[in-house]
Amino acid sequence: VKRYRLKFLPEGKEIEVIDEESILEASKKAKVMITSSCGGEGTCGKCKIIIKRGVIESSGFEKLSKEELDKGYRLACLSKIKSDLEVFIPLESRGVNKELLKEEEKERVLYPESLEHQIEKLIIDPITKKYFLTLPPPDIDNNLNDLDRVIHTLEKDYKIKEIEVDFYVLEKIADCLRKEDFKVTVTILFFKNRARLINIEPGDTTKDNYSIVFDIGTTSIYGQIIDLNKGEVLSKSINYNAQLRCGEDIISRIIYALKKEKAEELQALVIETINSILEELFKESRIKREDVSHMVFSGNTTMMHLFLGVNPRYIREAPYVPAFSFLDPLKTKDFRIDLNYHAYFYLLPSVASYIGGDITSGVLATNIHKEEKLTLYIDVGTNGEIVLGNKEMLFTASCSAGPAFEGGAIKHGMIAIKGAIEEIYIDEESLNPVLVTIGNERPKGICGSGLISAVAELLEKKIINQKGKFFKDIASSRIRKGESGYEYVLCYAEDTSIGKDIVLTEVDIDNLIRAKGAMYAGMSLLLKYMEKSFKDIEKVIIAGNLGENIDIERAITIGFLPELPLDKFIFIGNGSLLGATLFSLSKDKSKEAYHISDSIMNIELSSDNRFMEEYIASLFLPHTDESRFPMVTERLNRR
Amino acid sequence: VKRYRLKFLPEGKEIEVIDEESILEASKKAKVMITSSCGGEGTCGKCKIIIKRGVIESSGFEKLSKEELDKGYRLACLSKIKSDLEVFIPLESRGVNKELLKEEEKERVLYPESLEHQIEKLIIDPITKKYFLTLPPPDIDNNLNDLDRVIHTLEKDYKIKEIEVDFYVLEKIADCLRKEDFKVTVTILFFKNRARLINIEPGDTTKDNYSIVFDIGTTSIYGQIIDLNKGEVLSKSINYNAQLRCGEDIISRIIYALKKEKAEELQALVIETINSILEELFKESRIKREDVSHMVFSGNTTMMHLFLGVNPRYIREAPYVPAFSFLDPLKTKDFRIDLNYHAYFYLLPSVASYIGGDITSGVLATNIHKEEKLTLYIDVGTNGEIVLGNKEMLFTASCSAGPAFEGGAIKHGMIAIKGAIEEIYIDEESLNPVLVTIGNERPKGICGSGLISAVAELLEKKIINQKGKFFKDIASSRIRKGESGYEYVLCYAEDTSIGKDIVLTEVDIDNLIRAKGAMYAGMSLLLKYMEKSFKDIEKVIIAGNLGENIDIERAITIGFLPELPLDKFIFIGNGSLLGATLFSLSKDKSKEAYHISDSIMNIELSSDNRFMEEYIASLFLPHTDESRFPMVTERLNRR
Repeated sequence: VKRYRLKFLPEGKEIEVIDEESILEASKKAKVMITSSCGGEGTCGKCKIIIKRGVIESSGFEKLSKEELDKGYRLACLSKIKSDLEVFIPLESRGVNKELLKEEEKERVLYPESLEHQIEKLIIDPITKKYFLTLPPPDIDNNLNDLDRVIHTLEKDYKIKEIEVDFYVLEKIADCLRKEDFKVTVTILFFKNRARLINIEPGDTTKDNYSIVFDIGTTSIYGQIIDLNKGEVLSKSINYNAQLRCGEDIISRIIYALKKEKAEELQALVIETINSILEELFKESRIKREDVSHMVFSGNTTMMHLFLGVNPRYIREAPYVPAFSFLDPLKTKDFRIDLNYHAYFYLLPSVASYIGGDITSGVLATNIHKEEKLTLYIDVGTNGEIVLGNKEMLFTASCSAGPAFEGGAIKHGMIAIKGAIEEIYIDEESLNPVLVTIGNERPKGICGSGLISAVAELLEKKIINQKGKFFKDIASSRIRKGESGYEYVLCYAEDTSIGKDIVLTEVDIDNLIRAKGAMYAGMSLLLKYMEKSFKDIEKVIIAGNLGENIDIERAITIGFLPELPLDKFIFIGNGSLLGATLFSLSKDKSKEAYHISDSIMNIELSSDNRFMEEYIASLFLPHTDESRFPMVTERLNRR
Repeated sequence: VKRYRLKFLPEGKEIEVIDEESILEASKKAKVMITSSCGGEGTCGKCKIIIKRGVIESSGFEKLSKEELDKGYRLACLSKIKSDLEVFIPLESRGVNKELLKEEEKERVLYPESLEHQIEKLIIDPITKKYFLTLPPPDIDNNLNDLDRVIHTLEKDYKIKEIEVDFYVLEKIADCLRKEDFKVTVTILFFKNRARLINIEPGDTTKDNYSIVFDIGTTSIYGQIIDLNKGEVLSKSINYNAQLRCGEDIISRIIYALKKEKAEELQALVIETINSILEELFKESRIKREDVSHMVFSGNTTMMHLFLGVNPRYIREAPYVPAFSFLDPLKTKDFRIDLNYHAYFYLLPSVASYIGGDITSGVLATNIHKEEKLTLYIDVGTNGEIVLGNKEMLFTASCSAGPAFEGGAIKHGMIAIKGAIEEIYIDEESLNPVLVTIGNERPKGICGSGLISAVAELLEKKIINQKGKFFKDIASSRIRKGESGYEYVLCYAEDTSIGKDIVLTEVDIDNLIRAKGAMYAGMSLLLKYMEKSFKDIEKVIIAGNLGENIDIERAITIGFLPELPLDKFIFIGNGSLLGATLFSLSKDKSKEAYHISDSIMNIELSSDNRFMEEYIASLFLPHTDESRFPMVTERLNRR
């Protein structure tokens, strides 16, 4: 059999393929995402790709338009590989498929410092570790108690000193020691310079040691299970934060939690979500609950307060004081998390009321704190956070972007799950849109990236002006006056899965402008603190739920991201989850996290008058100061 | 008013008294125990004393026999002081009155190193301490989180580093700080070199900090509440260990606990007793539960296992391995102890399976580990433990004395509470006994000290021989053949409070001989280990429930204690409770306890063949080797 090299663009991933293999099949092997809903039969026409170099045997041309054929588009499922190839996967063929997401997410992340890369460089030395011990059996001349027998051997064999002991170990130590002839495996939890004996098992169980890391977002919660011996992610799961029903953003949750019983409700809801994700993770990975030694939780400061049942009230009131930044590891059982009794959880340390452990985690994952390059880190979730700096100095700020980026406060907004419109192309003549939805399903609503895409398209196609207002003289049934002012019809009822028109209103656009304006103003101000300007930025890292799917160019078009060369932008995906994974896998990394949270300088934007000026100047598409977006301005003017 | 000096013998306690004051009143002021049940009216005739020197005005002679009057006996209540006096209180007037016991116990203990003396020398520095903090209030330029604000102030003001934090503090920190303008009191638990923040309260509450210390015995449980600012015992309480219904001694409890649900029952029972004692302590002292910051538990190794619900099975099986020697402090709430959520308890560290924290505690209380003098420490409870040594070296051993000393395995045996016969005098001619009972109540049974007294009297009055067998030719209705062989009637049914004859059987005497034989053999063997003999012993400390009440001379007569000059013997009372109190009051003392338990050398008597020889030689009254008890032998031969 002949073998060729196949390279997928733009990621650049290369694999070896077999003669006549279809590109779609090859993409699955390479874990590169190409959308397809007919199972490779050539009937759905979704798996469009562009052949950049090399020879294929292809069919199924009827599913492609003449323009597409001219541009080199083919269907991946009906293209047989006949030589070394370079294949470009256009955006519209790269929709998120939630089933594949779990396996593929790591691959979809464009950031070169992905988990595998980081782990390769990492000395795996988990924060909770198992040790196999062969104890000298007791006799009448050495009838030291069981516990000290274990501790002395740990001290002798592994130089672990001053070990603290969980009472749980005592409950079973006597029988454990005598079950396999004084051979036991102990689990030690490390925290700062302390070591704690948290579990004991008969025999050698060191091969089974797992952790579960979580990112607790205001809107969605991500969990994944890690093999602590191999440093591998075994399974992933995502769900809405069940607290959503009590308010969409942080502030509304804090207000909700003012009453004790409501705070308890919020705590119960998030724990319910955590437990449902655990259920899925265990089902999928077939790992036993008792083999999980610890969890790591990352998330914003408010989420951590609500999760633990700590009063978040003063987060919201000036001078914005949280109750804690980080805590000693806590027992999962005390928080009704469905794990074995011995398992603890760690928290990523937070920085301030609006700069949570998720940001510390993101910095940890991207090594900004260790690099020379001036890096801008943007995490766009329900709230927006920015980090700017390098190994010399780190500044951070939170922007009340509002929930628009996660579909909140948007008439048909939704989070980036199946059925969400995530990309839009508007035909210049007809003004009709081409929609790309997650999972290639019928549209249900629009998510953050879709929103950015839509507003950029409306602007570029001159349907709205730079203030985000509709040109009212356009002759198109898509543009109409709805209940809440002017709106653009993204999808008519009959084509949706919700049975009504999906529209984008002027109010929605205004909300997005405020959100992106707050983010941009925040970046501007942090640069001022560092006495730098946008052109000094050497790297822009985009993290967060939104970040994974946005189109950089369109984000620049609307003035959400600064106008910088595209190759400076990289996506990290869920940086919070990645950092939490590294935290779990490495004692050194976990110590770095505490160092980051201690050394990062938080700027309270609301207390700086210049912020409001910057913000108001940013309430324009892309910006009132055209000189900051010369290329966008030129393009807009050209049309 | 004229004033005189009054000296009470044999203790030697002196007080100042007023002219015409009654000796009984004076004894109350001096906290010297004289029994009385008529309230000082001269009608009960119990408060007999002997005037050794000085002048009194006396009446009530009709309550005294001619012999008594001849010997100088008077009634304390009807004797008015008219000069400086020396008054001897004979044993029969010194019964234990349980009502007074709580206040008086410290005074009754003859050991010069009593709590007051120890505390005077002690720098009070409790293991759990309160600190009042005035925090800098937060503003927008210093909006550090609440927890770090507290921790930084503690570090700055008190140099306490690397503080661990209980989650409980987090639950209330935000509101606590803001209640009294950022002035708070924090409670820090110290353990080894660690410090743990366990409570936070608004304002200054440092004046209220209390601890509760317990001695958990197999038969009885003692608790007392301590003011940690003043180093004072505020109230005391005693109760039976409710586990008694499941077996009288350690071994029967371990067997009972072999089934998990039975072990849980035992745990629940002891915790029930602890909680009932707490209830009494709080009622009496009027201290609030939330002001108790910690507890200290002392007790034998098995009791500690059962209390904590740790499997004690291997304590009983060779090579006698306990699960633990000591543990990090544990939360009272996790063991259903009725205290505030934040309170922890510490355990006195044990030495071995049959040398518990109570022995470590006793050594701690008596400073054997710091003194030159070769000291023998004897703790007689349900089990008997011996410590021998000084600051150079400490040996310890446990003797399976059996429960005879606490009234177990004795037909009418009982613990030393009201109604227990604790002293006996047998009239040489009539062979009728004079009984002294605790609380001067009608007899219910006989306790350990009564048993020693009875056997010594039976021996001295030639009713039994040196093997403990009754002389069968004695013409007295007191000596008769009962259900279980020969017996002596201590009290006929009509004079008891139980409605039947209280007797002492040959089997009882045999049990006592075995018990005292085991103790004596243990002492002999420990001396061999140290290459010393009885005459090298410079001090004998008698501790334990029995110890408080026994008559040294009679204990020597039966060969339970070695024949040494009486001034070498001192009583410490409940050494375990005293040590636990010092442990609670002083970080240094608590560290000494760990040092003691680490350095003390435990001898497993059962594994030394010489023990059985010594034991068999001791099964005689006083001993088969007459040369060890020359004075007793001479006295017995004289009669």
